[in-house]
Amino acid sequence: MSLDQVSQSILYIIIILVFAKVFGELAERIGQPPVLGELVAGVILGASVLGWIRADRTAILAPESSVLVFLAELGVIILLFEVGLESDLEEFLRVGWSAMLVAVIGVAGPFALGYYSSILLGLSYTSAIFMGAALTATSVGITARTLGDLGQIRTSAAKIILGAAVIDDVIGLIILAVVGSLVAGNTVSFGEVGKVVLLAVAFLAGGIAIGIFLAPHMLGLAKKLRTRGMLTISAFLFCLTLSYLAHELGLAAIVGAFAAGLILARTEDLVHIQQRIKPIADIFVPIFFVMLGVSVNLSVLNPLNPEARSNLAFIGILVLVAVVMKVVAGLGVLKRGVSRLVVGVGMIPRGEVGLIFASIGLTRNIITPAEYAAIIAVVIITTFITPPLLKGVLSRENA
Amino acid sequence: MSLDQVSQSILYIIIILVFAKVFGELAERIGQPPVLGELVAGVILGASVLGWIRADRTAILAPESSVLVFLAELGVIILLFEVGLESDLEEFLRVGWSAMLVAVIGVAGPFALGYYSSILLGLSYTSAIFMGAALTATSVGITARTLGDLGQIRTSAAKIILGAAVIDDVIGLIILAVVGSLVAGNTVSFGEVGKVVLLAVAFLAGGIAIGIFLAPHMLGLAKKLRTRGMLTISAFLFCLTLSYLAHELGLAAIVGAFAAGLILARTEDLVHIQQRIKPIADIFVPIFFVMLGVSVNLSVLNPLNPEARSNLAFIGILVLVAVVMKVVAGLGVLKRGVSRLVVGVGMIPRGEVGLIFASIGLTRNIITPAEYAAIIAVVIITTFITPPLLKGVLSRENA
Repeated sequence: MSLDQVSQSILYIIIILVFAKVFGELAERIGQPPVLGELVAGVILGASVLGWIRADRTAILAPESSVLVFLAELGVIILLFEVGLESDLEEFLRVGWSAMLVAVIGVAGPFALGYYSSILLGLSYTSAIFMGAALTATSVGITARTLGDLGQIRTSAAKIILGAAVIDDVIGLIILAVVGSLVAGNTVSFGEVGKVVLLAVAFLAGGIAIGIFLAPHMLGLAKKLRTRGMLTISAFLFCLTLSYLAHELGLAAIVGAFAAGLILARTEDLVHIQQRIKPIADIFVPIFFVMLGVSVNLSVLNPLNPEARSNLAFIGILVLVAVVMKVVAGLGVLKRGVSRLVVGVGMIPRGEVGLIFASIGLTRNIITPAEYAAIIAVVIITTFITPPLLKGVLSRENA
Repeated sequence: MSLDQVSQSILYIIIILVFAKVFGELAERIGQPPVLGELVAGVILGASVLGWIRADRTAILAPESSVLVFLAELGVIILLFEVGLESDLEEFLRVGWSAMLVAVIGVAGPFALGYYSSILLGLSYTSAIFMGAALTATSVGITARTLGDLGQIRTSAAKIILGAAVIDDVIGLIILAVVGSLVAGNTVSFGEVGKVVLLAVAFLAGGIAIGIFLAPHMLGLAKKLRTRGMLTISAFLFCLTLSYLAHELGLAAIVGAFAAGLILARTEDLVHIQQRIKPIADIFVPIFFVMLGVSVNLSVLNPLNPEARSNLAFIGILVLVAVVMKVVAGLGVLKRGVSRLVVGVGMIPRGEVGLIFASIGLTRNIITPAEYAAIIAVVIITTFITPPLLKGVLSRENA
């Protein structure tokens, strides 16, 4: 990477942050969460409108674009780390059964209904399994940010959503392993699947238990060191390390970042850590949401495009399944006084995991380009409707 | 860039920061500036020892390495921004003539002596000009960081060094333009050179004047906005924008970052900006110095390698010229009570600009690989000797 390319990357970052702030502010002024403005900013910068910035994750990118994709991922990792720092592990354990039930219903519902709708629409058995699987996993970044924007991140509903999203991610591992075996024509080895899941659960439970024991010692050591910035670097390294391990175990990196936040939230240095992480989050988190918008290709929804038009009915059905079945999942909330509707709406966004299924399916010729486009459309629509929907149901609840 | 590559980049960052802190702390414990430890950490991680991390700026890199190179540049930009924030423009103007004289002597001396030594050693006229030019420009990052490590960044000596380094960079533009024309076989167009220099000076003087006028309005506007992190983002964007413009005008990006810091240092929000930039600097600045170490290829200095051995005398002479003539430049200090030795030693490090001359010379067959290696060796040696030398002369002065 030459210095000219570095300079070009800097220009991209300037443009992204200026657009993020202008559109975030506009969203705020019309009564919407700023994150919606950032998403729109990304769509405008991306291929659908201006085409200034590219973000295709699978293609070989120019180094400048790789840098942007990386900074975006760093942004969502820091977002979930911050959310973890603001959370209390005990409160999570208290809503554990609600989160578990919401997660299970929220996976089983969209899977079953996605599968049957696809079969009814004439898809093959394997394609239908893929479509169902692609609709299962919640992408928690949007909801976490929206709840943060609205000052609702410390509520019980937020705890249930975040807890359910973590459990979702573990269930996603199972589905990925099972569907992966089916696609490869192998029988499903329950031993293998069990091993993957056991590792993930051991990482989460064990990692948090060990982390709670070790973190005060780590921070104590850091304070004995004489060079500057030790607390910031220790906290940041702790977050990156758990994110890395989570990814290597097949979980989402943000699950690790969230766990890191939960652990450090129990240390006496919490306030200082939050102060130091906040400016880093201020800069990198918007990059994630703008780049999420950049990755949107609106042509799959263009009714003037005949190919897209013939697909719109299918997309409509999938979106309906995706939205309704997650809202239904909100009924899994056992705790009194928590709005089932808020929790259900908070579970609506789909993202990464759906896209992973979509691209595996496409590259192995299990699903058609039209079916691939439909999954992309579900991700786009669920991402964009959640911030206003969540804002709407929250103000109705609080009214 | 796939999520696996993102995860790999995160692993690299974890390793870099852990090594930076461990070796920085070791350096501190043996009475050396932490930056020296970070440089050594980089050498150990790089091709010379472990080979875990690559940083070649000219080659086509894996996306993970591009990310590291970018984060390193972002680190040095933030470092100089921070230094600017801690500085006072009036004090700079007060030491302006000293800085000017130090810069001019510090460019003319190494150029003349580098040129004549090369001629005496049998190099051609053009090669000798290149060798001389490669020895001129000061790389201020090392010195700024070392002075910061030692708590000396607010001294008059520091002001003169920083001011001289900025002037150095403008003179570097002239040399690059002149040498570039000579190499291309053109006569030197003084009009062209004048235009380049005028633009750079106009950017620095005009940019700072306009910036001082506009910055309070910008920050005032930012405070009226309702979305979070506005002050952090405004300051960060201001720094990136001036860095980008400086680079596009042919100056170093860090000159722009430094100017941005100088401007914001005059606003009423200075303390808040410093608080917010510090954690970002804590994380990204060490990445720059570790990556500087990573880019070192010690084989050019290996006496067991016959090719390197035959070059050692030449390298020795060049290093001597490079060090002595910058120390001599310290005599340019007019202001009383400022140590000429500290200023001279602070001007020793060579970096980016020397490497640019070296690679232009090599790719156009003006200098041989051995001469190229000699320039690299000068950059390495001057980089590594400066932190301990500066610490040494400072403790002697203050004794």
